[in-house]
Amino acid sequence: MIDGSMQDYALTLDKFLSHAAKWHPLAEVVSAAPDGTVDRVGYAELHDRSRSVSGALYRLGVRGGDRVATLAWNSQGHFEGWYGIIGMGAVCHTLNPRLTAKSLGAMLAQSEAAILLVSPDLLPLACAAIAEGGAVRHILLLDKGAAITAAETTVPVGSLEVEMALESPDIAWGEFDEHSPCGLCFTSGTTGAPKGVTYTHRGCYLHTMRQLSADVMGVRGTDTVLAVVPMFHANAWGLPFTVPAVGGRLVLPGRHSDGAHLAALIRSEGVTLGVGVPTVWLGLVEHLEKEGGDVPSLERILVGGASMPPALMERIEQRLGAEVQTSWGMTELSPLGTAAAPGDPRRAPGVSGRPAIGIDLLLTDSAGLPLADQRGPEGHLRVRGPSVVDRYFGEAETATDADGWFDTGDLARIDTDGNLRITGRAKDLIKSGGEWINPAEMETLVGALPQVSLAAVIGRADPKWGERPILLVETGDAEIEDEALLAPLRKGVASWWIPDAIIRVDRMPLAATGKIDKIQLRADYG
Amino acid sequence: MIDGSMQDYALTLDKFLSHAAKWHPLAEVVSAAPDGTVDRVGYAELHDRSRSVSGALYRLGVRGGDRVATLAWNSQGHFEGWYGIIGMGAVCHTLNPRLTAKSLGAMLAQSEAAILLVSPDLLPLACAAIAEGGAVRHILLLDKGAAITAAETTVPVGSLEVEMALESPDIAWGEFDEHSPCGLCFTSGTTGAPKGVTYTHRGCYLHTMRQLSADVMGVRGTDTVLAVVPMFHANAWGLPFTVPAVGGRLVLPGRHSDGAHLAALIRSEGVTLGVGVPTVWLGLVEHLEKEGGDVPSLERILVGGASMPPALMERIEQRLGAEVQTSWGMTELSPLGTAAAPGDPRRAPGVSGRPAIGIDLLLTDSAGLPLADQRGPEGHLRVRGPSVVDRYFGEAETATDADGWFDTGDLARIDTDGNLRITGRAKDLIKSGGEWINPAEMETLVGALPQVSLAAVIGRADPKWGERPILLVETGDAEIEDEALLAPLRKGVASWWIPDAIIRVDRMPLAATGKIDKIQLRADYG
Repeated sequence: MIDGSMQDYALTLDKFLSHAAKWHPLAEVVSAAPDGTVDRVGYAELHDRSRSVSGALYRLGVRGGDRVATLAWNSQGHFEGWYGIIGMGAVCHTLNPRLTAKSLGAMLAQSEAAILLVSPDLLPLACAAIAEGGAVRHILLLDKGAAITAAETTVPVGSLEVEMALESPDIAWGEFDEHSPCGLCFTSGTTGAPKGVTYTHRGCYLHTMRQLSADVMGVRGTDTVLAVVPMFHANAWGLPFTVPAVGGRLVLPGRHSDGAHLAALIRSEGVTLGVGVPTVWLGLVEHLEKEGGDVPSLERILVGGASMPPALMERIEQRLGAEVQTSWGMTELSPLGTAAAPGDPRRAPGVSGRPAIGIDLLLTDSAGLPLADQRGPEGHLRVRGPSVVDRYFGEAETATDADGWFDTGDLARIDTDGNLRITGRAKDLIKSGGEWINPAEMETLVGALPQVSLAAVIGRADPKWGERPILLVETGDAEIEDEALLAPLRKGVASWWIPDAIIRVDRMPLAATGKIDKIQLRADYG
Repeated sequence: MIDGSMQDYALTLDKFLSHAAKWHPLAEVVSAAPDGTVDRVGYAELHDRSRSVSGALYRLGVRGGDRVATLAWNSQGHFEGWYGIIGMGAVCHTLNPRLTAKSLGAMLAQSEAAILLVSPDLLPLACAAIAEGGAVRHILLLDKGAAITAAETTVPVGSLEVEMALESPDIAWGEFDEHSPCGLCFTSGTTGAPKGVTYTHRGCYLHTMRQLSADVMGVRGTDTVLAVVPMFHANAWGLPFTVPAVGGRLVLPGRHSDGAHLAALIRSEGVTLGVGVPTVWLGLVEHLEKEGGDVPSLERILVGGASMPPALMERIEQRLGAEVQTSWGMTELSPLGTAAAPGDPRRAPGVSGRPAIGIDLLLTDSAGLPLADQRGPEGHLRVRGPSVVDRYFGEAETATDADGWFDTGDLARIDTDGNLRITGRAKDLIKSGGEWINPAEMETLVGALPQVSLAAVIGRADPKWGERPILLVETGDAEIEDEALLAPLRKGVASWWIPDAIIRVDRMPLAATGKIDKIQLRADYG
């Protein structure tokens, strides 16, 4: 008996832009240039332009599986370069411009990229990075950057626009295995050497479908989405795939993510959904509080990448009139783990929602054994799914346990309704007198105070106890006594957890991805 | 260089129920029994019960790839049987109880199913079908049906509940290739022999993810979904996968889909989303108009399976206070093709929305050559995607053209915004004097009259012209003159298209899937 079958269809990412070009040809990607002007281009034209990028890369020697690096802000050029690389089966290695030249050089050496696409203002950093290591043979400037001949550039610096103009958009896209790699992103490496996460077409395709679900990101064709989260930060959380997949408008803010710039873009473009780390929305709120005005089109803000302090969430929702949707993810998860369902009345600052189909969670003890009770107790969080790392780039060994679970390094609780609450990082725990103190628990309590913008607890070396916790706070213009800062801790945690010192900082140091930089804090105060 | 990888994860349908059991254990499937009572069971218990079904089937000799048939209404037992079959890698062959015993016997002979799961009230039909052909060795009654020993049953008739009670829910699910078949559904066969469409795990998994998108069905965990569309009708349009995937409540109405029954269920269960062919909602409206009362919880109705007459759409929206979402699909598409986005202000009765990512459309001429202009002109509709049939059951040859497109047999137009409008069935066209007349175009015009419930145009043999069109209308209690029925045609179509006769019918004959039965009409009036 012959069974019959459904059609072949490889889950490759080029299909998202091809779909948008065919079914939403005039829906726009809007790109804010450094000079304050705004460029607009429809998906049909973007599709042609991106295929011209593929043609140019092919002419320059790039083949399927080769890494092509980008060092760029969120811009039309970066978007075209991205699809140009991915569509032909090459691997887009995104570099974070907030890292040092030395770090970038080490990453380029690992990825062996021969071509580097660069935002014009990042050319000096690109040259410095190349001097540190790697095999880059060509730099191509994005976004109308003109070719440059200068002594300080050790490799040819061309213009992608000029290279594209030599091509016709007739290169075939797709036609490779859906398990092929499409991207490479190094973790922020807050401890030890950064690890490269290889994204695959299948993994990102399924991640996109999960995000499109009404209970997850639920992006619609009528949405205008502001991608504040950078494309070098774990695929901009998937937005370059998710938004074209439904033919939505995508707004790319370029280099600047300060409150004034975001407010102007939200107003001029009618942004409905903003996506980025909590601190950028704090900047927007502060701008509006200072300058006045509103952002009436904004309906929802999806935050992730760091925990959302309760006071900040309330302040954002009140000032912006938009719903804050919390989420949790990490580079190794492509990157979304869980998200609170839009409109969920039980959403709360520290709660990151339930997993949607395609991602599964398991709490274990420190030895990796599953907790008998998965609802309530704190455990080490492991995850499984088609968009979760199996092996890191360059590694022969799997990063998962014998049952296929990946250890996130996070500590978490899952409530009776299945909602995830990240309670800390295993490696952030402070060992005091042989017992563990969880900084995240205290940060949540102090962060809930309306006067506190950001709070961090770190361990300080102590001759008697090994380590003792100290509290760092950023309060802006608000005034608050030390004892008031400690009051929620006296009620909420054991007395020996209470920090030994309180340090007020003007600006909390933030890592390249916008999270509080605990490495820096430990170096300065630990 | 070692690329790195994402985790293995087979796209198999057992994962939807396993996910629901773990993350939404208490969310219910509600099943209306023939005696008027209602059964409720949470996904965790359903998961255990369904795995007990797998255990029982395994003991009775079923192995991966084997077909197991069902002849059943939408009920808890059918749902459990369905997942029990599919979860272990067997193939669920759904039979339509509105077909004749002879047709059913022919289908059973094709599928070679050895076990048949049957709703208790359908046992006589099951016995009659088995007498016509096939290889059924066991009948198992669903939904607490007790084992029967009677002379007229030629094969043993057991009780699935009794068989399940002998099993523990510890059989492994999944662990087979995602391209494996999961279901078998014969087309309604309105012309020629019915063809079997083989559904696959991968095809239905990706179909589910497409449906979950906010711009398609957008089902949410907070929804209560009434599945009026039968599970034997192209997987109940995917609802047995889609609703557990998000942990929504699923209401199964059993045998009866009359207005009184639906109104009672919607009210008692707080249904938010109703899914079924247009005629069932007409029944609901007529019931409410007669008996009074409202269905305030109902927010949206997804219709498909037949074109939605404009007057009926307006009447439904006004009387029920719910939004009607139009869609188009077919058995061969798993089955959803396109759907109007929820809340789309441009939605209209004859328009079925844009394709979402994962399905693509092409208009061709009658020879299969793509139309030069895909926007505006009428053409023959072809489709492609991972949930679209490649080969029919039992066929060695592909059902697609050289470029992989499947010819739907539908005629359609696509407007400048990409919205699909089905304009007719190629095989319904009437050839009059050597020229083609499209009945669907006239049906839409006449169907727009407020007095008309249902309208059909068919060809009648004519000695001079070959065929001439005649118009059949169902008007209920409304009165309307012949000339008033023809008025929209005199304005909207060529004069030689005007039907030669008008026939008023008390009840339009409906095929087993709820569509107007043109075969019957042609037999009676052609």
